[in-house]
Amino acid sequence: MRCFTGEQLRSYCTQVLTRAGISPTDAATVADCLVDADLSGVESHGVSRLSIYLQRLDAGVVEKENRVRVLSESPAALAVDAGNCMGAVGATFAMKKCIEKAAQAGSCWATVKSSNHFGTAAYYTKMAASAGMIGIAMTNVTAKIAPWGSSDAYMGTNPISIAVPSEGLPVVLDMAPSVVAMGKLILAQKLGKSIPEGWALGPDGKPTTDPAVGRKGTLVPIGGPKGSGLAIFVDIFCGVLSGGEFGPHLNDLYADMVNPQGVGHIFCAIDISKFVPLETFRSRISQMSEEIKALHKNPGVSEIFMPGEIECRRHAERLEKGIEISDAVYAELQEIGARYGVSLS
Amino acid sequence: MRCFTGEQLRSYCTQVLTRAGISPTDAATVADCLVDADLSGVESHGVSRLSIYLQRLDAGVVEKENRVRVLSESPAALAVDAGNCMGAVGATFAMKKCIEKAAQAGSCWATVKSSNHFGTAAYYTKMAASAGMIGIAMTNVTAKIAPWGSSDAYMGTNPISIAVPSEGLPVVLDMAPSVVAMGKLILAQKLGKSIPEGWALGPDGKPTTDPAVGRKGTLVPIGGPKGSGLAIFVDIFCGVLSGGEFGPHLNDLYADMVNPQGVGHIFCAIDISKFVPLETFRSRISQMSEEIKALHKNPGVSEIFMPGEIECRRHAERLEKGIEISDAVYAELQEIGARYGVSLS
Repeated sequence: MRCFTGEQLRSYCTQVLTRAGISPTDAATVADCLVDADLSGVESHGVSRLSIYLQRLDAGVVEKENRVRVLSESPAALAVDAGNCMGAVGATFAMKKCIEKAAQAGSCWATVKSSNHFGTAAYYTKMAASAGMIGIAMTNVTAKIAPWGSSDAYMGTNPISIAVPSEGLPVVLDMAPSVVAMGKLILAQKLGKSIPEGWALGPDGKPTTDPAVGRKGTLVPIGGPKGSGLAIFVDIFCGVLSGGEFGPHLNDLYADMVNPQGVGHIFCAIDISKFVPLETFRSRISQMSEEIKALHKNPGVSEIFMPGEIECRRHAERLEKGIEISDAVYAELQEIGARYGVSLS
Repeated sequence: MRCFTGEQLRSYCTQVLTRAGISPTDAATVADCLVDADLSGVESHGVSRLSIYLQRLDAGVVEKENRVRVLSESPAALAVDAGNCMGAVGATFAMKKCIEKAAQAGSCWATVKSSNHFGTAAYYTKMAASAGMIGIAMTNVTAKIAPWGSSDAYMGTNPISIAVPSEGLPVVLDMAPSVVAMGKLILAQKLGKSIPEGWALGPDGKPTTDPAVGRKGTLVPIGGPKGSGLAIFVDIFCGVLSGGEFGPHLNDLYADMVNPQGVGHIFCAIDISKFVPLETFRSRISQMSEEIKALHKNPGVSEIFMPGEIECRRHAERLEKGIEISDAVYAELQEIGARYGVSLS
C-alpha cells in the first residue's frame, strides 16, 4: 500500500497520457476524471483504468487526436460527435458546454455519440453542482442485463447520476439499474463463495447462487421490470437520441480490442436560479439532509447517509490525507511508468 | 360490470366537475386525464378518483378557480404556481407550455408547486411523445418510503415517467421507486393473506410478511439505497426546485381534508428533431423494440413487453371496445351523478 496526493496521481497520469499521444489539455482532463474517482473511493473507476485506456490507444481502437465536434446546436440542445476520442474528453466538452448554455437558456441537454468509457457519471454531475446547477449524466455500456422476461443480455448496467448543490457537500446519486455490479460476482468467484439469490440469472434465465453461472448469464435489474425499464431508457437517451449505437451493438471495453466501443452519453444541466433563488435551494437541500439524517435509525445502522455523502466526505478527506493505492495497482502504474518513461513518486 | 366508451365517461366527469364549480375547460382536462388511466387499464388512477376529487373541492381544500400562474420563465425553464387548483389543470398547463418552448429552444423543464394529485405521470409524458418529443414527468406524494437505513417514512412513492415515440405505440415507463404500491398491502390484508418478504418494513424497520404491520411501517425501495436515492431526487425536483413542499411536509390526499396537499411536479420535453431526424429516431426505437421482443423468453413467459406496451395496447383496445367499470365504482359514479344531477348512460 502506497499513499499519493491527488496532485501526484494527476500529474503522473497526465504525463503518461501525453507521452501516449494525447494533447496535454486532454490528458489533464482524463487524469482529473480518473483521480476524482480515487479521491471519492470509487477505485474501480480510478487510475486502475489507465492500463486499459493505454492499451486501447496503442491498439488504435481509440483515437488519440481530439476530433470532438458539434453536430447541431439550439439554445437548449446540443448534439456532439466525440469522434471515438477518449471518453472523458468528449464528455467533459459536452457537460461544460451544457452548463454554459443552461446559464443562458435555463437548462440544456447534450448528447455525445461515438465515445468511449467516460469514468464515473458522478464526475460530470458534480461539475454542474459546482456551478450551482442540477446535473444529470448517463452512459450506455455493453449488454449485461436482460429485458424483463428474457434471459438474453441486451442493456448494459447503464448508470444514471444526478447531483445538486447544498450549503455543504453536494447530494450525488450515481447508480446502475442492476442489483449489483458484475465486479461482485467476479470477487465471489475468486473467493470461492456463493452469491445471494436475486443478484444474477444463469444463461437459462433461472436465478443462480453460483457466481460462475451468473457471469455467463445476466445481472438482475432492481425492481424487476422497473430497473429493466430504466436501463432501456438510458440506452434510448445515449444510443438513440444521440444517433449512436445501443444494446448489443456496443463493443466491450476489455473484450474487444478491434472495434471502437461506440458508447454514447447524455448530459443535462438545469440552472437552479431560473426557478428559485440559488441560496434558497441550497438551504432547503441542507434542511432536507438534516431532517433525513435525524430520522430514527434501523438496528445496526450508525448513521443515515444522503446519496453520495460517503463518497463526497471521502473526497474531502483524501484531498487532505492522500490516496492509498493497492500494491497490485501500484505495480501496474510502475510498469506503465517504466514503459512511458514517467516516474510516480 | 358495466361498459362505457371513453367519450361517455369523459363527458360524465366533465359535467360533474363543471357542476362542482370547475370551468368547463378545466373540467374537460381533469376528465381526460382520469379516463386516459381507465383506457390504459390503470383503474387506480381513473374515474375511481373522482369521488375524492369532489370531496376535496367541496371541503374547500382544493381551489375551484384556475389560479395557475407563471412565476418565472426563460427559453428552457418555466416555474409555475398552480395556486392549489386541481392537479391535472396546472400539470397540463405546464407540460403543454414545456412542449411549446422545447419546440423553440430544443428542450425545456417546467416545475409546478402548490398543486394536487395529478393522475398518472404517463398522461403527461405521452403528451410529449405525441408531439414527437421525449417527455419526462415526476411528482412528489406523501411519505411512505424511509430513507435507506431508517424506518421513518420521509419520501413518497414518487413516480417517474419517461416516454418516447416510435413508429407504432410509444414506449412509456411509469414507475414508483418502491417494490410495490401500498394498494397491494391493502388488498392482501383484505384477503387475509401474507405478503412476500421484501415488500414492506414494520414500524421497527424490520422486514415483515404481515400486511397490517407493513401498512403501519414503510414500503421497501427498489434496489435498497438506489430506489431510496431516486425517491429523494424526485422530491428535490418537485419539492425543492419548484419552491414547494417536500418529504413529510406534504399532506395526504385522503387522510387530511383540512390542509392542501402541497405537492409539486416537474416536467421536461426534449425536441428529438434538434438532435436527430425524428423519423430516424422513430425507426430506431421500433428496431430496438423488435430486437428486444425477439429475445429468448424465460420459462413461463409468453411475450416480452416494452415499457408501457401493455397499457398502450389496452388503451387502443378499450378505445374501440369500451371500458368495463366495476360494480363498486359504478355505484359510486351513480351516487355522484344523483348528487350533481348528471346521468351516466
